Amino acid sequence: MTDLVEILTNELKSRGWMMATAESCTGGMIAAAITDRAGSSSVFERGFITYSNESKEELLGVPAEILRDNGAVSRQCAAAMVQGCLDHSRADLAVAVTGIAGPGGGTADKPAGLVYIGWGRRGGLTGMAEHHFSGDRAAVRQQTVSAALQHLIDFMKVHP
Amino acid sequence: MTDLVEILTNELKSRGWMMATAESCTGGMIAAAITDRAGSSSVFERGFITYSNESKEELLGVPAEILRDNGAVSRQCAAAMVQGCLDHSRADLAVAVTGIAGPGGGTADKPAGLVYIGWGRRGGLTGMAEHHFSGDRAAVRQQTVSAALQHLIDFMKVHP
Repeated sequence: MTDLVEILTNELKSRGWMMATAESCTGGMIAAAITDRAGSSSVFERGFITYSNESKEELLGVPAEILRDNGAVSRQCAAAMVQGCLDHSRADLAVAVTGIAGPGGGTADKPAGLVYIGWGRRGGLTGMAEHHFSGDRAAVRQQTVSAALQHLIDFMKVHP
Repeated sequence: MTDLVEILTNELKSRGWMMATAESCTGGMIAAAITDRAGSSSVFERGFITYSNESKEELLGVPAEILRDNGAVSRQCAAAMVQGCLDHSRADLAVAVTGIAGPGGGTADKPAGLVYIGWGRRGGLTGMAEHHFSGDRAAVRQQTVSAALQHLIDFMKVHP
């Protein structure tokens, strides 16, 4: 985890980029990991912890139709969260996560451990991944943080 | 820490209250701690990680004059963050923290380890504490999380 944050921080610094986060199931853990490093204010701009559906609409502009038709844990919601995070921040790069950390809250269609991670650069490409993590609530959340950091690193390495 | 979160969660549930957070130096750690518990969506509504000065103004409505005259690490800024957190959420109770986690960024007037924690209930009383924590960056951040949770618990116990 510390290694991933160090790599991510160096990639951001080398581009002069700032980051923003929009987190649901991780509840601030991604931002906490990035800001664990001294001097993180040069790479981290702001973060949104959008736990309720209302906060996803009000802070990030996620359309009510997506929350109604696709649900908060959906590819569509993750994509809208990325866009909203860029629209409502000054960051160059954004990541958004929404999922079911468990142990409750899962269904046959959307079991605990299902997490969507979206990322995007201002005015640039956007990526999306669907994960099915195993383990308890803490394990699902921790794996989500690691995967989010890794997706951001991979994205920057292929878009130098 | 787990004990503090459990006590806080039970106090919130017994009142039917939701919480929101506005974090600067802790970068999401308070929200992450609260949402570590299963079922936290019944007590946690949303959180703001306002790392940059611009985010404090744009997301929480902290007046530019406070940032200019008192600085982001000030009693005045923490109070404005609490008010902004209530104004821009649907929560009943809010907590805000701003400080210098260190090791850099400190001055003679405002050394590393200086942290202001504010809290308030919608339409109700507001409290404020100035802390001087010792230790490294991780220790300052961790002590800030524990102190914030303890202030919220104490507040609710005397305002049943």
